[in-house]
Amino acid sequence: MTDSPPPPPAKRRRDAERTRASILSAATREFGAHGFSGGRIERIARTARCNIRLLYHYFGNKKALYIAVLEAAYADLRQRQAALDFDLADPLGSIETLLRFTFTYFDQNPYFEGLLRAENMMRGKFLTQSTRVPEEAARLNARLRQILQAGEQQRVIRPGIDPAQLYVTIAALSRFHLANGYTLSAMLDVDTHSAEWRAGRLEHSVELLRDWLTTGASTLSPQARQPAALAT
Amino acid sequence: MTDSPPPPPAKRRRDAERTRASILSAATREFGAHGFSGGRIERIARTARCNIRLLYHYFGNKKALYIAVLEAAYADLRQRQAALDFDLADPLGSIETLLRFTFTYFDQNPYFEGLLRAENMMRGKFLTQSTRVPEEAARLNARLRQILQAGEQQRVIRPGIDPAQLYVTIAALSRFHLANGYTLSAMLDVDTHSAEWRAGRLEHSVELLRDWLTTGASTLSPQARQPAALAT
Repeated sequence: MTDSPPPPPAKRRRDAERTRASILSAATREFGAHGFSGGRIERIARTARCNIRLLYHYFGNKKALYIAVLEAAYADLRQRQAALDFDLADPLGSIETLLRFTFTYFDQNPYFEGLLRAENMMRGKFLTQSTRVPEEAARLNARLRQILQAGEQQRVIRPGIDPAQLYVTIAALSRFHLANGYTLSAMLDVDTHSAEWRAGRLEHSVELLRDWLTTGASTLSPQARQPAALAT
Repeated sequence: MTDSPPPPPAKRRRDAERTRASILSAATREFGAHGFSGGRIERIARTARCNIRLLYHYFGNKKALYIAVLEAAYADLRQRQAALDFDLADPLGSIETLLRFTFTYFDQNPYFEGLLRAENMMRGKFLTQSTRVPEEAARLNARLRQILQAGEQQRVIRPGIDPAQLYVTIAALSRFHLANGYTLSAMLDVDTHSAEWRAGRLEHSVELLRDWLTTGASTLSPQARQPAALAT
């Protein structure tokens, strides 16, 4: 038997990246479904078709893998939110775009909701160790602030909105029915898991947010406006 | 040794009721904190200061106790909601009352949120076995429908609102920040557990709901329109 020559470095890098990505993807499902303590490294390795030694080689330990999963999930969401086409000439439309995107993103990534549930059950133990997640959230917050200011100036959005409060509401409208789908369905005699109900929920959410954003938008006289709103 | 005479029936009934109530209260905390499978009967008995045989005598088994806890939690909420002073002459005020009450109730009963989380993680397995919970929800739903109709007639509430959709929104505004307090706090650099933040969240929620309920309420009488409604 002769040894085959080692693969070129570029290929080795690609392989390593591919393995890391499939471990992360398998770990996202595992921790999303079973939480941190219920998540099993063996199952993750099996799903990712890699051996456990390699998994530890890439991620160190279970805790580090879990934090990497959390950070990767948030990073993906924030990068896609940042890539949305926010048009300062249409502030109301921009916020509607963010709501529609966020609602649909969580709908299509059910494991993320599971991760957030697990993390909150552990009182945010691991998320508070991340600097990356709050940094990315702060960038979105700054973007929202810009949009709100533009909306105020153009008198299409009410003055004085706190971007953090707005974001909590967007998240609540996007995610509450996912976390509570079974109890809501049992209680209200509707199927919150059906595409039809979810489409109706999204339209309701858009309407709710728009009516609040626009109420009182044009009641203030220009003199009464704050300098921040006048500045370009 | 002489036997002491057995206590009179009325006293025995009172004692039995008191024991049942303390078991239920201890079980609510236990299942709310640890879920169904994580909940321990021994801990419940210890907290309720009764022996395990007596606990099984009253509730049969762990599953039946868990269902009794869920039903009792919902029943308490629904009875208090039903006792609210809903005034059909003030439909908007009535819905605001329901939101303020529900928000504060969940705030003050954190174990209820834990119970609902556990039940949703089990895909509503036990709640779907209850007939009492959906019946009580249907009564609240009918009440909401009445209030909405009165509001529509008086042209203070927009027409065509689905009471179930309204209730999901009231629940989302009341509970989302409780289930996600740790991740929201870590991300947004606020303390969602502080009384101050929560008070602000409640006022935001009241405003959000009111603006949506009233937008387009008086489309039939142009004189009564608000400036914001004219602008859109």
